Amino acid sequence: MAVNVPPLPDLLPVAGVAIGTARAGVKASLPADRQDLVVMLLDEGASVAGVFTRNAFRAAPVQLAEAGIARGGVRALVTNSGNANAATAEPGLEDARRICAAVADKASLPAGSVLPFSTGVIGQRLPVDRIVGALDAAIADAAADGWARAARAIMTTDTVPKALSRQVSIDGATVTITGIAKGAGMIRPDMATMLAYIGCDAAVEPDCLHAMVREVADRSFNRITIDGDTSTNDSFVLCATGHSGPRIEDTASSAYAALRDGVADVATTLAQYVVRDGEGATRFVTVRVEGGADSAECLRVAYTVAESPLLKTAIFAGDPNWGRFCMAIGRSGLASLDTGRVNLFLDDVCVARGGLMADDYREADGARVMAQAEFVVRIELGRGDAAETVWTTDLSYDYVKINAEYRT
Amino acid sequence: MAVNVPPLPDLLPVAGVAIGTARAGVKASLPADRQDLVVMLLDEGASVAGVFTRNAFRAAPVQLAEAGIARGGVRALVTNSGNANAATAEPGLEDARRICAAVADKASLPAGSVLPFSTGVIGQRLPVDRIVGALDAAIADAAADGWARAARAIMTTDTVPKALSRQVSIDGATVTITGIAKGAGMIRPDMATMLAYIGCDAAVEPDCLHAMVREVADRSFNRITIDGDTSTNDSFVLCATGHSGPRIEDTASSAYAALRDGVADVATTLAQYVVRDGEGATRFVTVRVEGGADSAECLRVAYTVAESPLLKTAIFAGDPNWGRFCMAIGRSGLASLDTGRVNLFLDDVCVARGGLMADDYREADGARVMAQAEFVVRIELGRGDAAETVWTTDLSYDYVKINAEYRT
Repeated sequence: MAVNVPPLPDLLPVAGVAIGTARAGVKASLPADRQDLVVMLLDEGASVAGVFTRNAFRAAPVQLAEAGIARGGVRALVTNSGNANAATAEPGLEDARRICAAVADKASLPAGSVLPFSTGVIGQRLPVDRIVGALDAAIADAAADGWARAARAIMTTDTVPKALSRQVSIDGATVTITGIAKGAGMIRPDMATMLAYIGCDAAVEPDCLHAMVREVADRSFNRITIDGDTSTNDSFVLCATGHSGPRIEDTASSAYAALRDGVADVATTLAQYVVRDGEGATRFVTVRVEGGADSAECLRVAYTVAESPLLKTAIFAGDPNWGRFCMAIGRSGLASLDTGRVNLFLDDVCVARGGLMADDYREADGARVMAQAEFVVRIELGRGDAAETVWTTDLSYDYVKINAEYRT
Repeated sequence: MAVNVPPLPDLLPVAGVAIGTARAGVKASLPADRQDLVVMLLDEGASVAGVFTRNAFRAAPVQLAEAGIARGGVRALVTNSGNANAATAEPGLEDARRICAAVADKASLPAGSVLPFSTGVIGQRLPVDRIVGALDAAIADAAADGWARAARAIMTTDTVPKALSRQVSIDGATVTITGIAKGAGMIRPDMATMLAYIGCDAAVEPDCLHAMVREVADRSFNRITIDGDTSTNDSFVLCATGHSGPRIEDTASSAYAALRDGVADVATTLAQYVVRDGEGATRFVTVRVEGGADSAECLRVAYTVAESPLLKTAIFAGDPNWGRFCMAIGRSGLASLDTGRVNLFLDDVCVARGGLMADDYREADGARVMAQAEFVVRIELGRGDAAETVWTTDLSYDYVKINAEYRT
């Protein structure tokens, strides 16, 4: 049950991007009405940038996609759900290369211009023949309106598809940005969520696009956590086809800033959708830490709070338990934290002031805030001017159920 | 349901230690047949050492107990369950001081010779009058055979009392060691479990005892995790009354080593009992990491594996999911980990070799191991000679239930 994710809106085509989907049947248990294969075709001249998981067991497709982006000249992205092709060593790399070569062959693209992506179960070989067998159908299906079908085809434990579009005006030209993402568990991206693709029709120099994808990730996919578990396959790819607007060649330009903010808007919304659709989530919680000495320590406190199993179960129960908040803040490892300066707010309700439960705090007020489907936990550290925000969920029975039964 | 904790054994008295218990009714919901107050009286001349939580919100009693041990001359320890007296600032310190003063007064002990301990709900004031009102009964009850009653009185969400005795021979003299502990959730001691007390009748110089309590904690209470959440009240206290054996004055002596190993045996068993009684635990899991470059990186991998929500739910389900193990190993943040050298064993079953599922691995073999109430996860990193072991549990529906309903 996703927390306040709207139904899939109308998605705007991005000039220069065509997307086709098909059913490969990667997982035998794929429901009859679902697809699991996506081919995204880019016009010649598009810029592509990406950020990828820092997990040491990074999957075969992650390794190849990162190398392919560095080489340049990307013309297609091929994605399967149902199997992550991770912890598969050299055979996994060979499987991914075979699929990419088949896409290049069938779509008449240069060898080495195709990037692979996979998501699903870790540690099992890909059913390459089934995937290759479905490529003709996916390529034949490719069209400008394929974004919504793709958003559905990349889902695994997601309960809802996640996608949106925005338009921004840059130097008088209208630039269209459309993005899709998947992810619901194993979510603490150290670079990006499991899989997210954002396309735009702006013209962006590759170096600028690389800078932008990192800036945007640090505002969006690098600020979410469901269970603190970082996937082997996290990938966030940003494509700019160059069909609209001026050519962006300088990260200090106003055009760069305008596009970056538009892309960040899409990416942040998608990242929040991933949290809202978190496995077993019944709450969407914004954890805001203010007054830190620097950004790093704000993030340290925010993630400790966001990932504490005791706090997450208290949030599931709607229990405004100041003790668990102070436990989590206290164990986050900040050097010489003066607990006597720590304040805690739930939305506008002051729970603790100066490290102590506030005199005027009534538990009914805290319970009222935590009964909502979404609320803000705000922590003031009183050590400086830095602030950071992360988004997270509660820990419910259903989280355990979903993950205990994942492979059955 | 604790995993393989034996019924409370016969406990050996420790010469020089008398323990009394009583019912103060700290928590209104305390069952009618339970006590919640313990006074431990030590003969003059006993040495006392302790290790305490590193949580920044360390509770009032923790601050006073640590200072009291540093002052020396400890004659009594007073412990209540039901309320942690944590995040209570200056009023909490004053509450604890009042209780200590009352113990000193009623037991005719020097002012400042009493150490306070509390465990339970965080962020609420202690009911000092109820505690002081029960002190006479606790002191009158004090006897050499009070260990078992104390093990029960300090329980909070524990389902079973935890205690044991050992005897060691030191230079021909028999030394008796008896210990009790409580703890079931908010368990990742950074110094010691929530509360543990070990008494022995050996004679130990205070400096030696301080060294010993740290060495022992690092083999026992500092090697367990249930949920990664570090309490504000963790305390582990070691008392040596000096009634038996030679005086131990040198940490390099064989007498020191013999006593330390005996105390460590008691402490490790108690620490494992805490894990076995972990909130909602259905499995007791030993995580052994070998072949690390140093102890720190072995612990980093071991704790990441032991605390991964996805792995803990897979363990609950008895699902030998190699993908989740490699995810957790991979996200533990080791610099330049060569995943191609990582091996994984479940008991004697080799699951993965060289970073890849082993050719001869059959999932039925892994499932057979994980169907047991306890088993060993052994990870070989292939980077050096260091090794570390931590103990943990699974993450079950009941963990969520217990913590979601904790205060209701």
